[in-house]
Amino acid sequence: MVKIGLDGIRQFVEPEHLNYTAAKAALAALKDGSGKGNDFIGWVKLPETYDRDEFARIQAAGKRVHENAEAFVVIGIGGSYLGARAALELLCSPRANEVKKGPAVYFIGNGISGDDIAQVLELVKGKSLYVNVISKSGTTLEPALAFRIFKKYVEETYGKEGARERILCTTDKARGVLKGIADREGYESFVIPDDVGGRYSVLTPVGLLPMAAAGIDIAKVMAGAAAAMEAYLKEENDNPTLIYAAARQALYNLGKKVEILSYPGENTRFIAEWWKQLYGESEGKDGLGIFPASCELTADLHSLGQYIQDSERILQETMFRFEKSVNRVEIPMVEEDEDGLNYVAGRDYDAIFAAAAEGIRRAHITGGVPVMELVAETPNEETFGQLVYFFEIACGISGYMQGVNPFDQPGVEEYKKNMFALLGKK
Amino acid sequence: MVKIGLDGIRQFVEPEHLNYTAAKAALAALKDGSGKGNDFIGWVKLPETYDRDEFARIQAAGKRVHENAEAFVVIGIGGSYLGARAALELLCSPRANEVKKGPAVYFIGNGISGDDIAQVLELVKGKSLYVNVISKSGTTLEPALAFRIFKKYVEETYGKEGARERILCTTDKARGVLKGIADREGYESFVIPDDVGGRYSVLTPVGLLPMAAAGIDIAKVMAGAAAAMEAYLKEENDNPTLIYAAARQALYNLGKKVEILSYPGENTRFIAEWWKQLYGESEGKDGLGIFPASCELTADLHSLGQYIQDSERILQETMFRFEKSVNRVEIPMVEEDEDGLNYVAGRDYDAIFAAAAEGIRRAHITGGVPVMELVAETPNEETFGQLVYFFEIACGISGYMQGVNPFDQPGVEEYKKNMFALLGKK
Repeated sequence: MVKIGLDGIRQFVEPEHLNYTAAKAALAALKDGSGKGNDFIGWVKLPETYDRDEFARIQAAGKRVHENAEAFVVIGIGGSYLGARAALELLCSPRANEVKKGPAVYFIGNGISGDDIAQVLELVKGKSLYVNVISKSGTTLEPALAFRIFKKYVEETYGKEGARERILCTTDKARGVLKGIADREGYESFVIPDDVGGRYSVLTPVGLLPMAAAGIDIAKVMAGAAAAMEAYLKEENDNPTLIYAAARQALYNLGKKVEILSYPGENTRFIAEWWKQLYGESEGKDGLGIFPASCELTADLHSLGQYIQDSERILQETMFRFEKSVNRVEIPMVEEDEDGLNYVAGRDYDAIFAAAAEGIRRAHITGGVPVMELVAETPNEETFGQLVYFFEIACGISGYMQGVNPFDQPGVEEYKKNMFALLGKK
Repeated sequence: MVKIGLDGIRQFVEPEHLNYTAAKAALAALKDGSGKGNDFIGWVKLPETYDRDEFARIQAAGKRVHENAEAFVVIGIGGSYLGARAALELLCSPRANEVKKGPAVYFIGNGISGDDIAQVLELVKGKSLYVNVISKSGTTLEPALAFRIFKKYVEETYGKEGARERILCTTDKARGVLKGIADREGYESFVIPDDVGGRYSVLTPVGLLPMAAAGIDIAKVMAGAAAAMEAYLKEENDNPTLIYAAARQALYNLGKKVEILSYPGENTRFIAEWWKQLYGESEGKDGLGIFPASCELTADLHSLGQYIQDSERILQETMFRFEKSVNRVEIPMVEEDEDGLNYVAGRDYDAIFAAAAEGIRRAHITGGVPVMELVAETPNEETFGQLVYFFEIACGISGYMQGVNPFDQPGVEEYKKNMFALLGKK
């Protein structure tokens, strides 16, 4: 389970400023459905209530793709993209496409770039291709455009019949453009539950199907989430989700308006990206909200480090890391010792990272930045499920504490309205 | 050349708040070397003064690596990493390793992750490997550890003689641990000029050698930078570097303490990462500085978009894009038009991105976020050189306007001191 450490905020905030009463009330409202946006809290009990038949279909389809595809294109944006990519980069690798176990996975339709589309079309050419398009409505411009192009490619390459085998839709159970296309064309489709919003949908077919196709054991992911659910729905002061929510809100009230999630390496980058959406979109409204930023350890200490250490004191930091890596890599002894590193020879990267993390924590506190610590176990399927549930529940609690509806996103429509008008949409 | 648009800040800031007098004085100080940190302004005239013999050696070594390597490991952190990666992702592709033109390039030694090292060791196995280690001193922990491991691997695989052919060092001209190793082992080494700091070093061997090895025409990059130098050293009010510096400082003075650089797709992500170091490390000191954040268009509008639109009004946005992509990808017509997108059929991605960008700009202004626009030409070598120089000069000007020394980074040592103590370094 995820452990939390607050030593690094004690000199900045009095214990009584952590409002556990409000945090517990928020959690109670999430559990009994009495809070704002309660049409969209299906994710709270999902690790227990998820549809087992649907899950078996996801596993079967995932296995089919994993065994038969050389390339797998996943079309989706925002909540239909970030969670799956976070899982794949953590549990496979950001360089997984070069390793050639299972299909090369390409996430597209998450932007408007001709170069991106052209490159992926080139890379999938001549490879056995499967496509998963993920969209509740089917009308979001970015994935809809990409799907138009890849549907055409698949049909031209494999025929209408082949496309039925190779195109998988994740969408609404009954309504919408994408569901209509799936039904008419005879594509297998997977259901995005009505009561789960995009950014809380990783543990639905939205995230699970790409994971299964990449060879990730999604039963273990759900088992991790279920264990987390049992631990994190407790209305007790030692529940780390309550502590995280109460602490970050207390720091926000002190003017720490930017939260930096620091994370322990490139394979964790998309956990941070997913977290940014989860928290930024849930809380950034009504003129309020903590700005979510991220910092890759230790890479970005050689870029953002100077700012964090010495500049505007508007920052709070959440330092996220794992207890240990999957691979144990030892520093070799070198006879000449010209680089003077023999004093760490024989130790492994994890031990050195731990010292670095502690050094960073102390430095940032000295510099005036409060630091919370979140520590998960080894990167694996269960841990990923735990992390997802941890951050989701803590986000719901934190949003309610802030007084907003953490489950809507009214501001996202504004640019789309302008864009569609400029494009001349009727 | 880079064009700047300020229409999107006019309702937030009066024209007289843009302090062109201070901006021009700052530029003059950069040119005549009369400002703070003037030991480190060698980059200002570098596009004109760079060492032609050294440049020819870089081209030759790059060509040798490009033609003979199947894998190329680049070891460096911060300023010895971000610029080269930005160039490769923009000018080749973030997926270039799958394309198999020239060597697969791996950037490592920019963190402390055993999993990262283990994965790259696995990927290079059995491939013809070349290594470029980049470090002024040779004692920075992250790259030094990675170099220890890869030097050993190369020696074990190719022998001491083979290592002499395959290991390239980019380091100080005379001093330091890495220079000592290079000299003793007989590795070819390339010089990081004394008067160019890490984050301003892209156009030295630090950035140029990895670019050349990846097949990028570095003469064109330098030609772009030289043209930019001619344009951007002019002390005139229509110089876009002066305008950018003056505008962001004016917005900072109004409380817009977070600058979001929004960028047009995944291949531009590392330009934003490089920019974050350049600006954050140059200005984030003495309790001052704009926090540098980024937003991928349009992907992150489905994550950070809600926050940008509706939350704390501490944001300023710099919207960066290209006039057009390399590839023209047209939206196909579909008879059934079930997705309702035929109204954009026949148009290409660039036209749609342009409408989206304008829609975003208007939406963010409406939401209370001042938006500056930076528009470069097509992504290519010259444009990259222009962009590097644009952002560097504007950063120097902006830092001087803020009253800091934009060329030091005193805060970066703090965590290192703690870390070395915890590791038991004598």
